Amino acid sequence: MTFALLSTDELKALVRTVPDFPKPGIQFRDITTLIGHPVGMADSVQHLAQLAKACGAQKIAGMEARGFIFGAAVAVELGIGFLPVRKPGKLPIETIGIDYALEYGVDRLEVDPGAIGKGEAIVIVDDLIATGGTALATAQLLRSAGANVENALFVIDLPDLGGAAKLRDAGLTVQTLMEFEGD
Amino acid sequence: MTFALLSTDELKALVRTVPDFPKPGIQFRDITTLIGHPVGMADSVQHLAQLAKACGAQKIAGMEARGFIFGAAVAVELGIGFLPVRKPGKLPIETIGIDYALEYGVDRLEVDPGAIGKGEAIVIVDDLIATGGTALATAQLLRSAGANVENALFVIDLPDLGGAAKLRDAGLTVQTLMEFEGD
Repeated sequence: MTFALLSTDELKALVRTVPDFPKPGIQFRDITTLIGHPVGMADSVQHLAQLAKACGAQKIAGMEARGFIFGAAVAVELGIGFLPVRKPGKLPIETIGIDYALEYGVDRLEVDPGAIGKGEAIVIVDDLIATGGTALATAQLLRSAGANVENALFVIDLPDLGGAAKLRDAGLTVQTLMEFEGD
Repeated sequence: MTFALLSTDELKALVRTVPDFPKPGIQFRDITTLIGHPVGMADSVQHLAQLAKACGAQKIAGMEARGFIFGAAVAVELGIGFLPVRKPGKLPIETIGIDYALEYGVDRLEVDPGAIGKGEAIVIVDDLIATGGTALATAQLLRSAGANVENALFVIDLPDLGGAAKLRDAGLTVQTLMEFEGD
């Protein structure tokens, strides 16, 4: 039996917009309502999994913390491994890491180099792309470990913030399920 | 077609033990190797999903950050919603929260009260239960919001640390896929 998935427009209607968070003038696109919805959660993952499969994904990478929500589920759907991209000090082994700039200050991401195969096709999955700093740093980190990183998938794109364009400049193919313009 | 799942003993063999992390004398049970394994990841989720289904789960709750990995995937498997239990300040709406004691200091968990139905059967899923402080606080928080919280599922139990016993004292049924004794 085949069930039709909710369309991406229907999924978009499940995203809650919260004005003025985390600061005045910002419209926060909140996935809590999407993932709390039984069909919204499952069908978002199905859409992402179809895209990841078409990319030839051999592993899914997701960034702490919200990227774990969609990334791990997509990996399960495809029967492939999941690579958690973690905040500093969380992994118990010798890691490789990358520092990257935030609006204010610097952050760092770390992975287990033993979890990355040479030439392995790793697809990045996250809930939302805004300025793209975290996703770009992830791609650079995984590439430095020998992975083949050509694709990044997001539930939500905020195109006005330029993140997808930045990733494309770095040679990534970016696909998203929905856009919110004017952010 | 039906595929046999890896047994929980086979899954246990995919968990990496790292000695002396985060401090001397601690054997850290690391799920990175389990979730990076294609079958290990999927079959862990299948085992958890079977348990959650038998519990009558209407929603899965997972605690930031590692609880998002298994919890969201179990929710997708069952076609039910996922409730992220978050660190302070992450949710963009008015939250309800609970403070709980750590070995040193206090931590806090927050959820969106609008995501919790009165009497809704919410099952807690996490990767590992040690002292049980986070899971117990989660159960108390969800119950205070009106949820029916009777079950908690973990991939790994460290029984010597007493967390599962503590949850059972609070009226929860605790099921785990594997135990590491002597920790």
